[in-house]
Amino acid sequence: MIKVSVLYPNGPGSRFDIDYYLRSHMPMVRERLGPVLQRMAVEHGLGGGGPGAPPPFLAMGHLYFDSVEAFQSAFGPHAEAIMADVANYTNSKPLIQISDVKL
Amino acid sequence: MIKVSVLYPNGPGSRFDIDYYLRSHMPMVRERLGPVLQRMAVEHGLGGGGPGAPPPFLAMGHLYFDSVEAFQSAFGPHAEAIMADVANYTNSKPLIQISDVKL
Repeated sequence: MIKVSVLYPNGPGSRFDIDYYLRSHMPMVRERLGPVLQRMAVEHGLGGGGPGAPPPFLAMGHLYFDSVEAFQSAFGPHAEAIMADVANYTNSKPLIQISDVKL
Repeated sequence: MIKVSVLYPNGPGSRFDIDYYLRSHMPMVRERLGPVLQRMAVEHGLGGGGPGAPPPFLAMGHLYFDSVEAFQSAFGPHAEAIMADVANYTNSKPLIQISDVKL
């Protein structure tokens, strides 16, 4: 299983509409990608490592697939529509991480 | 449910021993934290957003708890022992993110 993580960095002036993300963006992603998407997860940043520290990321979204190839073939045809929706919920420029799920 | 993510940034000269992490470090964390730890997850970085891009993070470890307070009271007494083991598997200085699990 592989995991595609989309991490939205926190910073001065950055904003993230978690309600829009949960109610509109992620359901659209699920519908576009279809059953090749094995699982999705969303987290909203609360804090960092030290007492009172801000979260490094405003939010994180994760998509699980059987393989990198399965992700690429499912995502490719919908990349433009999905990316075009990002400005509706954030001005943060996301980091993308593709990982092998070990545990 | 809250999630404590430990993200190990990739960079020049950075190393991460995923075998040690899976076989020794994370089992030790599980044993130290006890049943208040609801779930753990580990991912090993494969790539970034663009073709051939390196992963932003060498690895990520995630610990799930019922609340921030549950995490703090479970982790506090073992923080020193857990942190002392980090040098055994990486020279990367981890980012800590505490998140509210929304989905």
